[in-house]
Amino acid sequence: MTRGVLSVLLILGAILSVFATGKQYIPKTGKRIPETLSRGWGDQLIWAQTYEEALYWSRSRNKPLMVVFHLADCPHSQAFKKIFANSYDIQKTLDEDFIVLNLMYETTDSNLRPDGQYVPRILFVDPSMTVRADIVSRYSNRKHAYEPQDEKLLRENMEKAKKLLKQEL
Amino acid sequence: MTRGVLSVLLILGAILSVFATGKQYIPKTGKRIPETLSRGWGDQLIWAQTYEEALYWSRSRNKPLMVVFHLADCPHSQAFKKIFANSYDIQKTLDEDFIVLNLMYETTDSNLRPDGQYVPRILFVDPSMTVRADIVSRYSNRKHAYEPQDEKLLRENMEKAKKLLKQEL
Repeated sequence: MTRGVLSVLLILGAILSVFATGKQYIPKTGKRIPETLSRGWGDQLIWAQTYEEALYWSRSRNKPLMVVFHLADCPHSQAFKKIFANSYDIQKTLDEDFIVLNLMYETTDSNLRPDGQYVPRILFVDPSMTVRADIVSRYSNRKHAYEPQDEKLLRENMEKAKKLLKQEL
Repeated sequence: MTRGVLSVLLILGAILSVFATGKQYIPKTGKRIPETLSRGWGDQLIWAQTYEEALYWSRSRNKPLMVVFHLADCPHSQAFKKIFANSYDIQKTLDEDFIVLNLMYETTDSNLRPDGQYVPRILFVDPSMTVRADIVSRYSNRKHAYEPQDEKLLRENMEKAKKLLKQEL
């Protein structure tokens, strides 16, 4: 009996809320799931939306910035994303010590493509706003590319990026 | 009985999936809900992430671009967002005829702030990459600001933006 009353109340509530907020727009192709800023690279991280925003956060919080360039239809990006998003150590260190940004389109700053526009590509930026092109992966023709077996190398490079340029001088 | 077996299977599945994917990172402050690109301005729209991306989409699809500048802690932004996100007509027209971008940080392009950096502020950009500073609201001191009572005015301005510059020539 109580269940029946509850059901009726729930349905009434649903009807009332539709009237209160008006007709909601749903695309002809069906309801969409909103895209997240993480795009699957770590749902627990606080991602900057744009490079300008990321630089501002990096400077004001004195934390290095990691920029991940990727593409939705690139199998190399997808394979590395899986490792990246599921690595407890990478995610924890990024959350605590880094500003993070992932981009599918190039920025106007050519310093972020020191050896070309391939994906996946990871660049570090010091809070002094200097792109750390000196922090490289193992591929001589794509110095900032990472593959699934490079999780340990990325973690080592993150440690390098954490040693801020100003502190080294 | 069937329920009991199902429960056991579900628990086993959950345990196995944890082992398969390893330890997931959860921040000390608790699990976060991932931020969406819509940021509450319309979950059914396909939002560009950056201005570069939005300009590319606008040019390649020959659709005008709407850029919404806002701030999370600005009550005027929040009040107008409610009207904007719940307007069937605004959402439908944006989905079908516009490229959309919402930003909380300024870009490097000063054309997007023809009379200053206030929020909420809405600018239209023609697919020819010309910022339509001529499409204005009713406030002489903040020509691209909109308030909750300006839903109709915004819809009229959207119609103006849909008449592309090249077609007018």
